[in-house]
Amino acid sequence: MNDKIDLISLKDELQKKYERVRSFSKELCEPLETEDFVIQSMPDVSPTKWHLAHASWFFETFVLKEVFENYKSINDNYNYLFNSYYVQVGERFFRPNRGLLSRPTVKEVFDFRNYIDEHMQKFFETADEELISKMKVVLEIGFNHEQQHQELMLTDIKHVFAQNPLYPVYRKAKVISSNEISKINWIEFDEGVYSIGFDKDSFFFDNEKPNHKTYLNSFLFADRLTTNKEYIDFIEDNGYSRTELWLSDGFAKVEQEKWNAPLYWKKIDNKWHHFTLNGLKEVDPNEPVCHVSFYEAEAYARWANARLAIESEWEIASTNILIDGNFVDERNYNPIPLNENNSKIKQMFGDVWEWTRSDYAPYPGYKIPNGAIGEYNGKFMSGQIVLRGGSCATSKDHIRNTYRNFFPHHSRWQFMGIRLAKDLE
Amino acid sequence: MNDKIDLISLKDELQKKYERVRSFSKELCEPLETEDFVIQSMPDVSPTKWHLAHASWFFETFVLKEVFENYKSINDNYNYLFNSYYVQVGERFFRPNRGLLSRPTVKEVFDFRNYIDEHMQKFFETADEELISKMKVVLEIGFNHEQQHQELMLTDIKHVFAQNPLYPVYRKAKVISSNEISKINWIEFDEGVYSIGFDKDSFFFDNEKPNHKTYLNSFLFADRLTTNKEYIDFIEDNGYSRTELWLSDGFAKVEQEKWNAPLYWKKIDNKWHHFTLNGLKEVDPNEPVCHVSFYEAEAYARWANARLAIESEWEIASTNILIDGNFVDERNYNPIPLNENNSKIKQMFGDVWEWTRSDYAPYPGYKIPNGAIGEYNGKFMSGQIVLRGGSCATSKDHIRNTYRNFFPHHSRWQFMGIRLAKDLE
Amino acid sequence: MNDKIDLISLKDELQKKYERVRSFSKELCEPLETEDFVIQSMPDVSPTKWHLAHASWFFETFVLKEVFENYKSINDNYNYLFNSYYVQVGERFFRPNRGLLSRPTVKEVFDFRNYIDEHMQKFFETADEELISKMKVVLEIGFNHEQQHQELMLTDIKHVFAQNPLYPVYRKAKVISSNEISKINWIEFDEGVYSIGFDKDSFFFDNEKPNHKTYLNSFLFADRLTTNKEYIDFIEDNGYSRTELWLSDGFAKVEQEKWNAPLYWKKIDNKWHHFTLNGLKEVDPNEPVCHVSFYEAEAYARWANARLAIESEWEIASTNILIDGNFVDERNYNPIPLNENNSKIKQMFGDVWEWTRSDYAPYPGYKIPNGAIGEYNGKFMSGQIVLRGGSCATSKDHIRNTYRNFFPHHSRWQFMGIRLAKDLE
Amino acid sequence: MNDKIDLISLKDELQKKYERVRSFSKELCEPLETEDFVIQSMPDVSPTKWHLAHASWFFETFVLKEVFENYKSINDNYNYLFNSYYVQVGERFFRPNRGLLSRPTVKEVFDFRNYIDEHMQKFFETADEELISKMKVVLEIGFNHEQQHQELMLTDIKHVFAQNPLYPVYRKAKVISSNEISKINWIEFDEGVYSIGFDKDSFFFDNEKPNHKTYLNSFLFADRLTTNKEYIDFIEDNGYSRTELWLSDGFAKVEQEKWNAPLYWKKIDNKWHHFTLNGLKEVDPNEPVCHVSFYEAEAYARWANARLAIESEWEIASTNILIDGNFVDERNYNPIPLNENNSKIKQMFGDVWEWTRSDYAPYPGYKIPNGAIGEYNGKFMSGQIVLRGGSCATSKDHIRNTYRNFFPHHSRWQFMGIRLAKDLE
Repeated sequence: MNDKIDLISLKDELQKKYERVRSFSKELCEPLETEDFVIQSMPDVSPTKWHLAHASWFFETFVLKEVFENYKSINDNYNYLFNSYYVQVGERFFRPNRGLLSRPTVKEVFDFRNYIDEHMQKFFETADEELISKMKVVLEIGFNHEQQHQELMLTDIKHVFAQNPLYPVYRKAKVISSNEISKINWIEFDEGVYSIGFDKDSFFFDNEKPNHKTYLNSFLFADRLTTNKEYIDFIEDNGYSRTELWLSDGFAKVEQEKWNAPLYWKKIDNKWHHFTLNGLKEVDPNEPVCHVSFYEAEAYARWANARLAIESEWEIASTNILIDGNFVDERNYNPIPLNENNSKIKQMFGDVWEWTRSDYAPYPGYKIPNGAIGEYNGKFMSGQIVLRGGSCATSKDHIRNTYRNFFPHHSRWQFMGIRLAKDLE
Repeated sequence: MNDKIDLISLKDELQKKYERVRSFSKELCEPLETEDFVIQSMPDVSPTKWHLAHASWFFETFVLKEVFENYKSINDNYNYLFNSYYVQVGERFFRPNRGLLSRPTVKEVFDFRNYIDEHMQKFFETADEELISKMKVVLEIGFNHEQQHQELMLTDIKHVFAQNPLYPVYRKAKVISSNEISKINWIEFDEGVYSIGFDKDSFFFDNEKPNHKTYLNSFLFADRLTTNKEYIDFIEDNGYSRTELWLSDGFAKVEQEKWNAPLYWKKIDNKWHHFTLNGLKEVDPNEPVCHVSFYEAEAYARWANARLAIESEWEIASTNILIDGNFVDERNYNPIPLNENNSKIKQMFGDVWEWTRSDYAPYPGYKIPNGAIGEYNGKFMSGQIVLRGGSCATSKDHIRNTYRNFFPHHSRWQFMGIRLAKDLE
Repeated sequence: MNDKIDLISLKDELQKKYERVRSFSKELCEPLETEDFVIQSMPDVSPTKWHLAHASWFFETFVLKEVFENYKSINDNYNYLFNSYYVQVGERFFRPNRGLLSRPTVKEVFDFRNYIDEHMQKFFETADEELISKMKVVLEIGFNHEQQHQELMLTDIKHVFAQNPLYPVYRKAKVISSNEISKINWIEFDEGVYSIGFDKDSFFFDNEKPNHKTYLNSFLFADRLTTNKEYIDFIEDNGYSRTELWLSDGFAKVEQEKWNAPLYWKKIDNKWHHFTLNGLKEVDPNEPVCHVSFYEAEAYARWANARLAIESEWEIASTNILIDGNFVDERNYNPIPLNENNSKIKQMFGDVWEWTRSDYAPYPGYKIPNGAIGEYNGKFMSGQIVLRGGSCATSKDHIRNTYRNFFPHHSRWQFMGIRLAKDLE
Repeated sequence: MNDKIDLISLKDELQKKYERVRSFSKELCEPLETEDFVIQSMPDVSPTKWHLAHASWFFETFVLKEVFENYKSINDNYNYLFNSYYVQVGERFFRPNRGLLSRPTVKEVFDFRNYIDEHMQKFFETADEELISKMKVVLEIGFNHEQQHQELMLTDIKHVFAQNPLYPVYRKAKVISSNEISKINWIEFDEGVYSIGFDKDSFFFDNEKPNHKTYLNSFLFADRLTTNKEYIDFIEDNGYSRTELWLSDGFAKVEQEKWNAPLYWKKIDNKWHHFTLNGLKEVDPNEPVCHVSFYEAEAYARWANARLAIESEWEIASTNILIDGNFVDERNYNPIPLNENNSKIKQMFGDVWEWTRSDYAPYPGYKIPNGAIGEYNGKFMSGQIVLRGGSCATSKDHIRNTYRNFFPHHSRWQFMGIRLAKDLE
């Protein structure tokens, strides 16, 4: 850690960030009815009130219980109910049963949040330099952790609403102009030894480290995301029934789940519609395609005579690109059509998480950190695929070009899309 | 139908019953938080708000849409969302997904109920003699139908609350004195041809008809229900692991579900407790045992050197017994210890539904009625067992001694208990 | 037991029966290849060699080990491998895994049978009057038990062969003339108290007792079985998609299993064919329909404005009918078209087991016999339906008009068919 | 391909290899009874006769049907029954149902093999230089394909026999001396850019290509395999219940499957035994541990303060090591204790496949070959882990140091074991 940090401003900065992150969780809840907070529409989804309580539980467990000797929880059962996978912190309530809990009520969950906020304020008021320094990392994990759950709150409530034939609208859409999209330009990168992984002096997740060397062949990288129009071409070319395009596990999933389009898509009067957080609407051909699994992304790429990028290619291609784009800060809650033509590579951040061709594995030299927080990333390093770049549900200040998100091959309910790459022939 | 009915008082009587039944549904909801109305804790359970809406849907579909030519629903989707098994009335929302609907909200569901009540009031105000006569049966079905859902609202919210480690209390218990229970007296009935089934001139369900003759051997009938104490003796005598006591399917279920006590029972500090609508409390040895499956009832009976009654034996034994007991009208929401010693046969009605040894089958000469309402009973006549007598969650004026309730062999979440019978040796 | 039995001839008779039954098991195996003996095509099916060994195990366990003090088994593991549901005789090999055993080989299983036969011969040679009297019942159970497994050997090997696209032929068909079948004649029976159940002085299964009185309404009984032609009319009238014809559980099964015809049926070039033990052949419209579940029989009956008989009706209708018909003794291994017109009621025995409308339940006064053999029937008295009359795979001397067979509602792989009944209007 | 190949000797060489490979399949069947060939003990396992027929089907489909214009199959159904995953060659019989086929019999399958061998002999007799050149690659694929199925025949029959409480012995064990094993020596490799993948002029599988550069950190590589003794230490140190040692998916599997030791292990009289192709025997502490999943290997490595090697590390470590070891050519059918101390790195080939830490993914620049044979590897490149080095069931001339085997994370029925690696601190 940097010795020269100005601690007055550090505390101030941390407290401001705390307040900003915490209040955004509340903003996200504004459009919801009490009933909406309760539902778990599949095991991967958590009820909104669970997310709210769990994010508070994190600060209680890793900050308040650490710093206040006589800290008393508002309800001792909450530690059991709102822990998730931190085995070392004790027993956990069985995940797929989160939707069976009507109590604590939504109001009680907000009371819990307020209780935590009050104690955190007291913490900020009373902490000295040493304590602030010591807690800096865990606070930053807490902010990032809550931002991750903010993203899940949006993807999960979308899944909940999508089950409902009444098609509830989360927030009405802003008007976004949609221009026709030009053909992909292929940007060329040279072969060579590259440096991969986080190497700065700021917050990072353990899975981005250690910074290490990797050898890359030369490759071509698409200058933009794949659009709905392009994906519909794949559908109409019988993409979902041509086994030669698919990984074996992927085609088995297609048959088992009867997939014939991205999640939330539905043909009405012979036109593709999709359910969005702005309600059910016709598919905009110029928007990036979204809610496809790794299997679909991979099959689409083969159909398009291309492939997905490996994660180090993506990281190299993103170097020096400004982190800007359609993040949740824009309040669109949906990918939007490409509307700038100045950058060489567009839509690198925001809109949709981009499936890579890389399994989620430890970097060379990776060690699982000690303690409960160490459970956060390392133990999920099997059976998942890396995604990069953030989405329209991600906070802009949450993302880095070294950031590694990960989901199983078949997952579709996150805002997940496609960027193509190619070998140089 | 009786020609001499006084139609003024008939209309009055029907309207009063309508109001009484409808307002009791609201009373049952008083202790609930908004969040409680939403949860479906297993496929057999429906969310409270679904019950509320479905019972209203019945009056809308079978009364209002029939009698008002220009009747307009408050929301056309409700017909799809709140229909249950009436295939002939159109598509239905998939039952196990009822808990995925946050909308309509609880408030909207009550708005729907009020809307129906207003139109029903208009119906009662404007209907002439002929219309009242014509609608009498469907109205009575509607009342009884809503009463059935009132019972389910209680058993379902109990199941919902039981999932919650916070053990919510529905309503605090009234103080009930608990006296020691005497040994079973065996009441003898003679062999002979008996008349079984409904034969009066009042409301009945189609499955109680036709009235028909049956031949019964002489039998002995227990003068009271089986108690928790007796059932604990069975448990402590290794009842749950002695295969010779069990039906083959029953023992398979015991092993699969790891049953070792009634549903909701839990040992705490070496004492049996159970979750009730009055909260978690120690098991009262003198209360009737409750929340056992047919398999457990049948195995218990074999262990006790007895058997379950067949349903016609139960009906004969109950003839001339006044319909009185611990019904929902008493607001106990739980079985209570036997507290009267005057009758020859006690606890015949209320407290717990009594498992019989009879599969739910059509009576000789039974015909499924025509039309959607005809779907109500007949099509469930396979794979279920008859229960008799009503429970602490049943309305007193809902029950008859010919009333046939039915649930699958393994069901336990209703208030279900045990009455023994025996052959005369 | 009859005091006046001539024991010389009793022993002789038992030994002859033993030899006849045992050698018929071998006859049934003649058409099989070694590989055929090994396969378990679903959990309900057992490999042929298991049936062969299990039937021998019965004599070993309940006769040889009882009568010969120093009896030594050919292999001690066989007691574990070839026990089925007799819990009281010890651990059993998990039923659905019977098809995982390549050893003992078929040859070793026949060696085991021969070993048993040799010791049984020794038993017959050495047993005195007292011992023969004592063992008479268990021997008769053993004969009947082996006959039951002979029936299962045929139905099970049919199921095994049916999985095979090569459609193996068990035995070529004999030529059977097929005449057009006349309309059903409805035979009338009067209401009254009838005596039901076994009351003779010969072998019976415990579930046929006690003989007891029952009251029957008057009823009509079809003079013959339902034919393939009639069932095809039901199919072509969209019988499989009209929910109003079906029990709720039945229609759920239809949808889940995608049933659209009896088991083993298949449309080839727009004509219904079915797989039989004589190979794949076109459906003969005049044969009794076979391989339908209870659900299908019940729906068919409703479609035909009739119903299934309850089991006591069937028993009364069969009184005084000579036990004769298309049994396995005829070596047809398939139902055959009706070819006699003299009797009032035809096809009462043989051809197909006739589904009744009766759940398999204990008769009034039924007690489960003590000891391992007592496990045979009583513990299956839930969740199954009674069938009557025997089939083309049943031995003629195995059946009685009081004989109660039972299978679950959805079972189809036995030779199961339909006889209609009706209420007298 | 090399222009200067001497075609006379090429043909000769190919024919000799054909005969050698084909006759080894027969040798492997010698200890089997007819019944053993039929059984499929789990979906991953195929019956021995299926392997035999499928390997012949390969030569029929890709050689005989290609080269003989009027080639007629011995049975046209075999193409359907014995195709596996080659979608482009037509419909396939559903894999998990392979164990349901008693026909064709074992004898018929050997007739099929002989029929293919006769036609292949005719091919070798009549083929000219051009044809031999053209068919060379497909022949070599055929040899390697049959060798892969020879390995599966052994692992599958082991799994079949292991289900049987009689514990059949495939072949009696040879006596192998077992010496105590020294501590692991850690061999150091330098960081740098390495060349990975196949680059020779001989047979290879498509997944070994293209040869490409990779950057490796310096690493330490264990000089020998992990032993049973070491693994028992892990078990006794509660390795199977310490969640912090496990990947999240791995621990879920441990709990679901109740794993507490390698597959086939069983404690008898408090001593670990395991079922082997030599029968049930006590675990030799000095043998390499075998039949562990990736999850177990990974958890063991964490417990041992080490990790698994990534596949390129393994490949670099194996460069210049002579391909020799305990292959199936040794007829041990089981891993054997380390019995040489001369090499720096021991047991690199044979004994057990060594789990790597690498997901099975395409090499940079990999293209799926066209045509049916192209389906062979590429479509399995998701959800599996790479294993290296061959096992005691692998043919010595089948393996290369670039050879990439792959199985799902939870697989245990192959001969799979553990080699540790470490980062240089």
